[in-house]
Amino acid sequence: MGELVAAIGARGVAEVLLERADAEGMSAALAARGVRLDPRSIRAAHGRWSPRVDVEAFARSLQQAGRVGARLVVPGDDAWPVRLDDLGRHRPLALWVRGRLDAVTVARSISLVGARAASGYGEHVAVEAAGGLADRGFTVVSGGAYGIDGMAHRSTLRSDGTTVAYLAGGVDRFYPMGHESLLARIAETGAVVSELPCGAAPTKWRFLQRNRLIAASTAATIVLEAGLRSGSLNTAGHAATLGRPLGAVPGPVTSPASAGCHRLLREFDAVCVVDAEQMAELALADGDLAAAATPTGSATGAWDTAVTADGIRVLDALSARSPRTTDDVARRAGLEPRRVLGVLGSLEAEGRVVRRAEGWAARPAAG
Amino acid sequence: MGELVAAIGARGVAEVLLERADAEGMSAALAARGVRLDPRSIRAAHGRWSPRVDVEAFARSLQQAGRVGARLVVPGDDAWPVRLDDLGRHRPLALWVRGRLDAVTVARSISLVGARAASGYGEHVAVEAAGGLADRGFTVVSGGAYGIDGMAHRSTLRSDGTTVAYLAGGVDRFYPMGHESLLARIAETGAVVSELPCGAAPTKWRFLQRNRLIAASTAATIVLEAGLRSGSLNTAGHAATLGRPLGAVPGPVTSPASAGCHRLLREFDAVCVVDAEQMAELALADGDLAAAATPTGSATGAWDTAVTADGIRVLDALSARSPRTTDDVARRAGLEPRRVLGVLGSLEAEGRVVRRAEGWAARPAAG
Repeated sequence: MGELVAAIGARGVAEVLLERADAEGMSAALAARGVRLDPRSIRAAHGRWSPRVDVEAFARSLQQAGRVGARLVVPGDDAWPVRLDDLGRHRPLALWVRGRLDAVTVARSISLVGARAASGYGEHVAVEAAGGLADRGFTVVSGGAYGIDGMAHRSTLRSDGTTVAYLAGGVDRFYPMGHESLLARIAETGAVVSELPCGAAPTKWRFLQRNRLIAASTAATIVLEAGLRSGSLNTAGHAATLGRPLGAVPGPVTSPASAGCHRLLREFDAVCVVDAEQMAELALADGDLAAAATPTGSATGAWDTAVTADGIRVLDALSARSPRTTDDVARRAGLEPRRVLGVLGSLEAEGRVVRRAEGWAARPAAG
Repeated sequence: MGELVAAIGARGVAEVLLERADAEGMSAALAARGVRLDPRSIRAAHGRWSPRVDVEAFARSLQQAGRVGARLVVPGDDAWPVRLDDLGRHRPLALWVRGRLDAVTVARSISLVGARAASGYGEHVAVEAAGGLADRGFTVVSGGAYGIDGMAHRSTLRSDGTTVAYLAGGVDRFYPMGHESLLARIAETGAVVSELPCGAAPTKWRFLQRNRLIAASTAATIVLEAGLRSGSLNTAGHAATLGRPLGAVPGPVTSPASAGCHRLLREFDAVCVVDAEQMAELALADGDLAAAATPTGSATGAWDTAVTADGIRVLDALSARSPRTTDDVARRAGLEPRRVLGVLGSLEAEGRVVRRAEGWAARPAAG
């Protein structure tokens, strides 16, 4: 397979596999493309790969990719994120991308990762970090998971920034299900990416594999909040192995939710970072990135104050066109109705939401 | 002076200065001690030092030292802490010690320092750190100040550990005044130390000078909680300059009270430490210290649960013999009466205090 990919590229191999399922057919299909390989090599490659390639499933996967508008990007394409080449033989053969192809190749990008079981403190840190980095023109990359990942994506979108989610399964079905609408919004202005074909389900192994793409595709990786068993420590390990700058945000030593970050500081030489400016500085230390780390101010200028984690949840649960009742907003936001009422009150005072006869509605940011 | 000290020691110089105030007298006094120096050296030394030495004040200082039982320790004495020799030409000429002389020379010692303006979190960290290190047989050294220092001393005493306070003024007058009884208790089982003679008032410069003694006299220095302007960062700087292990306890990035610790982690290569075990490990990395860092368990075994910072304040404000009213305890503890009542309730449930007709009294720990 490696030899075939080298000769005609991953896209070519996919086409050849779709056209002909046996070794002779493959040989003919390759010859039609002007590629002549040793027949023994072709037989060996076919023997190794044909049991693993379900051509029917492969065809279905491509049809499904076409349906959801996912595009295949292979090394050498303009849309290929060259940082992934640092993975050497662990480089993915291809990426499936839903959304803007150019979001995936941005040099000024940073990974913000953390645990699913985020504390209120961790969510606050994620909101501040992602918002501040979006303001500084960084593309925020994460894993689309609940907790820290999700809050980093949301806060970036809220700051009109670009965010990219790498998934552990195919990009045709957004996982986790509760993040379906979040991932759809990410694909509108950024990108949702996977190395797996459409139809592939996320598995534990695939989550760990996915983490190497998050670490490798960005200028630096920051762990915002993580317990000792968080998968984000695996992402941090990939960043360290690749020699990429690695940052960790400290927290109270009394909080098990920060114990993983403290371990990174103590044992993995992670740099202690406490705000977006220090995170940007770390990413810019990568050398590839030019320009100063000053905020562009284009994004959050429209609002005076920062939005809280709950504020972002509530704003996400509102629509600008159809007003919603407090209970409806609470259900969509996954928060207590009483809490939602308090948050709505603050957002109304800041002019971000309006109260109508039928319920609450979002007010788009001015400017 | 340097030459004189080298010839007859600091104690000898003090005696000579007391006996004779002019250069000829000094020469005779030195000759009586079998020391013959070049008369020009003696005249030069006398010329340099006599304007600075107020012999009357010096005599008063020695009398005062005698009254409070302070003893003079000079390099070469058994009671001299040899780690101070690493200060080179910044080594103090002598130390005045109130309390147990052997407390000052213990090899297994660690500095716990931090800001006066401690948060509840910082106090909790100080209580846990000092208690855990006392349990592991460490002598806890600090500066006797309000906030983190005071809580480290108190928690060590509460765990029946040994603690040493280095002051920025003479040991005859305990400073700060609010810590008079705390410092008296420290001197009972540990030591209160200063390089300045009795009668010397603490000044800003002397606080900074004092910090070098805290850093130099211990196996490691840990900053428990410090804002960006805390004097404890100066102590940390001395530890780093001396090549002594330096640790810092992280806190929430949202708390300015932890910003100094984060700066130490980020810019001064301080080691991230989150509990007493990691602090002990850092001190033992010094090499001078043998044995494992396992708790002796002798101290806190008597109580099942840890005492909170407020709990320590309240216990300190109680007497085992004369019961005190809640208001009296609140005044002595510097806490709200309502808060004190809550704390007393918990301590009563734990069997640490008893309620009598006349008020509350402490119950000594069993065993």
